[in-house]
Amino acid sequence: MGFASEDQNRREKDVAAELSPPLSGRINDYENGGDELLLTPPLNFAMVDSGIFRSGFPDTANFSFLESLELRSIIYLCPEPYPQHNVEFLKLHGIHLFQFGIEGTKEPFVNIPEDKVREALKVAIDVRNHPLLIHCKRGKHRTGCLVGCLRKLQRWCLTSVFDEYQRFAAAKSRVLDQRFMELFDVSDFKHSALPPIS
Amino acid sequence: MGFASEDQNRREKDVAAELSPPLSGRINDYENGGDELLLTPPLNFAMVDSGIFRSGFPDTANFSFLESLELRSIIYLCPEPYPQHNVEFLKLHGIHLFQFGIEGTKEPFVNIPEDKVREALKVAIDVRNHPLLIHCKRGKHRTGCLVGCLRKLQRWCLTSVFDEYQRFAAAKSRVLDQRFMELFDVSDFKHSALPPIS
Repeated sequence: MGFASEDQNRREKDVAAELSPPLSGRINDYENGGDELLLTPPLNFAMVDSGIFRSGFPDTANFSFLESLELRSIIYLCPEPYPQHNVEFLKLHGIHLFQFGIEGTKEPFVNIPEDKVREALKVAIDVRNHPLLIHCKRGKHRTGCLVGCLRKLQRWCLTSVFDEYQRFAAAKSRVLDQRFMELFDVSDFKHSALPPIS
Repeated sequence: MGFASEDQNRREKDVAAELSPPLSGRINDYENGGDELLLTPPLNFAMVDSGIFRSGFPDTANFSFLESLELRSIIYLCPEPYPQHNVEFLKLHGIHLFQFGIEGTKEPFVNIPEDKVREALKVAIDVRNHPLLIHCKRGKHRTGCLVGCLRKLQRWCLTSVFDEYQRFAAAKSRVLDQRFMELFDVSDFKHSALPPIS
């Protein structure tokens, strides 16, 4: 550890330069593309963890951006069929679709099927499926619940799980979603459902 | 690409199982720790990209969580000296501190020093400094501006840059921060300031 003055703020160490493929790849693209070629992430897009992204429903305007993620899989949390344009995008890029049809509901009739979230979580943490995008319609409730359960598995305290959920759901935050996350039991994942660690 | 039924939703492919070290490491810790050992990310914590995180000011309650990130560097965007507890945490874990003292201001007196943001951005995109945490006090304005400039370098359209900024700044969003990001010229980074790509 050391304090660097702002003049000395770049380390000239013997640390080997390592690549951060998604970041460097995407910055590097900038050199090859023109300034005018802007990318449009889907609504409510964010990185959840290495190899896991979240968003609202991607449409054709987002496809160039999605290409830059080099996705291997998508977890889609709505019951409606996937639109034809999106199906074609997936086919073109060899992306595997995992669909877990969870109905979009409004309070007080929120009823999140725990079994589907549990199955989706197994897919999400399986590194063989990464890089992976989790999305529903707006990236708020269904996606927020699944990510919240993942955070519990990562041992985040509930305050932080809810804080993250609320950042995406904003004015649409639902107490019943938060109760679902609070009650979701991750102990099953401790022994049986973890991805192979090598 | 293929559609899997929910029963067939796990691929049994010849894809080699690959590790996503931060995620699997942190999930794996769950097996070794007790259920009661919860982690508390700092206020407004999020992953920006592979190897880059953002947050508000971390305090001692967040140290266990920060350990799990295995940070190599921190970019600290406030002029105030780093608290002694935090200095000790950095020393203990060999984390390098890059401080760029940007005053916290309130509109209409927002004056973001572009040279400091530019220097901080060089540090942020240098993969030799990763994993890296960017933080200021609340993780809203100074951190939001730096991350916004990074997104421009990644060719995100301004709408998406502002959407992300607002997700963290929420009710405290500042038009002058957004103007700063809009005017920030990333063309310098195209040729000179990129990390070595190998």
